[in-house]
Amino acid sequence: MSPDTMILRALREAGLGGVSGASLAKDLGVSRAAVWNRIEELRRHGYDIEASPHLGYVLRGSPNALHGDDLMARLPRNRVIGRDVRVFSETTSTNDIIEKLARDGVAEGSVVFAETQTRGRGRMGRQWHSPTGSGLWFSVLLRPRLRPSAATQLTVVSAVAVARAIERETGLRPDIKWPNDIMFGQKKVAGILLELGAELDRIRHATLGIGIDVNVDPAELPPEVREVATSLRAELGRVVDRASLATAVLRELDHLYQRLGDGDFHEIGDDWMRRCSTLGRRVVIHIGDRRVTGRAEALDDEGALLVRTEFGTIERIIGGDVTQEKAP
Amino acid sequence: MSPDTMILRALREAGLGGVSGASLAKDLGVSRAAVWNRIEELRRHGYDIEASPHLGYVLRGSPNALHGDDLMARLPRNRVIGRDVRVFSETTSTNDIIEKLARDGVAEGSVVFAETQTRGRGRMGRQWHSPTGSGLWFSVLLRPRLRPSAATQLTVVSAVAVARAIERETGLRPDIKWPNDIMFGQKKVAGILLELGAELDRIRHATLGIGIDVNVDPAELPPEVREVATSLRAELGRVVDRASLATAVLRELDHLYQRLGDGDFHEIGDDWMRRCSTLGRRVVIHIGDRRVTGRAEALDDEGALLVRTEFGTIERIIGGDVTQEKAP
Repeated sequence: MSPDTMILRALREAGLGGVSGASLAKDLGVSRAAVWNRIEELRRHGYDIEASPHLGYVLRGSPNALHGDDLMARLPRNRVIGRDVRVFSETTSTNDIIEKLARDGVAEGSVVFAETQTRGRGRMGRQWHSPTGSGLWFSVLLRPRLRPSAATQLTVVSAVAVARAIERETGLRPDIKWPNDIMFGQKKVAGILLELGAELDRIRHATLGIGIDVNVDPAELPPEVREVATSLRAELGRVVDRASLATAVLRELDHLYQRLGDGDFHEIGDDWMRRCSTLGRRVVIHIGDRRVTGRAEALDDEGALLVRTEFGTIERIIGGDVTQEKAP
Repeated sequence: MSPDTMILRALREAGLGGVSGASLAKDLGVSRAAVWNRIEELRRHGYDIEASPHLGYVLRGSPNALHGDDLMARLPRNRVIGRDVRVFSETTSTNDIIEKLARDGVAEGSVVFAETQTRGRGRMGRQWHSPTGSGLWFSVLLRPRLRPSAATQLTVVSAVAVARAIERETGLRPDIKWPNDIMFGQKKVAGILLELGAELDRIRHATLGIGIDVNVDPAELPPEVREVATSLRAELGRVVDRASLATAVLRELDHLYQRLGDGDFHEIGDDWMRRCSTLGRRVVIHIGDRRVTGRAEALDDEGALLVRTEFGTIERIIGGDVTQEKAP
């Protein structure tokens, strides 16, 4: 744990009670002057830290910015997801960075955020717009013990984690559109891109890319995106704290991913179904050149969508582009 | 096309009839002195090129070595597989180089050979031994329009290509053990490792790694490998020309891959079945912690193995470790 992570964790745990410089110096194994230097540095980053003669240091406020050390300080100690968190000001795509870490043999759970991406990716090779500083654009390295055919379980878990975190932080309850779009009505607020490095029967690693339009002003987006996109700020009418939401997503993801590993997919799938706007609707799905039309009936044990076609047969869909009829 | 590829292609096409320096100079758009310099360079690489006053240049013999320019000169002009061929003296793994090219957006068909690999990979994270200069260790970049669930088709195509090329070059007829081991009896002579970069419903690229123990002396291999491995030289009692075999594999692969793209998997699958030692046998398959026992009955349209279990049900196997009973 870095000194800044330790200091911020101690300050958050102490709350308004404060923590003394002597105690911080002891925990870090450095002088009180060195603690003071780190505190000054954190203040320069926008942390409002009061030095009180009686209470010691008290954290009064945090900047609406992303700092890896602070995000780690806000996460549980025994976490898998977020065991390492890095924040870049700009990358091509956070998935690219995680891919590189994966090939270097880094353990699962590393997370990379970027304030903006120059080549953010959506599904099917599409572009993803990442306006600077107003969204959460991040990727997570996973090494799940799943067969490639069960990889859809990961997007189900991720969609539930994002939806729950948004609900917790804003009180709003978004829908999930199969497999992994987070929507308010017909407008998308967050998307998930899962990329796999696999052999035929084994996932070597999975890169989970998540994009959330937190405080994005829809006017910042290109016209064709603007019509189908929204942001939490646009829905809520106020700015949302990105660091707090990022922490909430990583906590949920850590919790659900560990439950997935314990074999509890079924229960997560049930929550997904309750939040899903696709089930029960008529859908048209484009998979490459194919087109499947029918009624979305259920999710199976591997996260695939079961669609009853117009011919009465059940098609098992693992991907593709879904158009669903509007709510009745 | 590089000057050396053009010269070697012209020499091979001319055969014993030879080709004049003036004609080569004209084709290359350089002086006859420049052609002479390239010929000298090729001679230093071991090409036996005679300069006859009447015939011009005649290629009398080629070194038993791998040169990218020469391998390209031996391949058809309108190929996809082998549109670019590079030979490294040493790499970690040729799959690593192809992965990097794939991420850089290089078109499919690039091939990378290495004289030796320091971290050659087999299936399931196993090590692959690549003694220097005595085998063919290479990888091919593919961008197939296949769903991830049909990726087994690629290993079927590759196994047939390798088996056919070995048969053409040596007259020996190896067996195929599902899905992609090339065997003489109980001993493996070549292996194939397919690695995918994929989304849920789309293969972005596939890296096809092929290792053939051409002239490997089994004594060069570690004891535990020696007992289950053989080489073409060991089976045949003579050294096999590696460049000629490499060209034969790439030609077959190019042919079969284009047929796969045309929707002719069925016919390739039929040839696979004729060459396969697994079908009809009792097999035990380990997939992670699972174990399936039964009789291998057929290959399905996506290249999966259909096994009739001891309970009478059919299991569809897409990977795993196969142990098959010996021939009756």
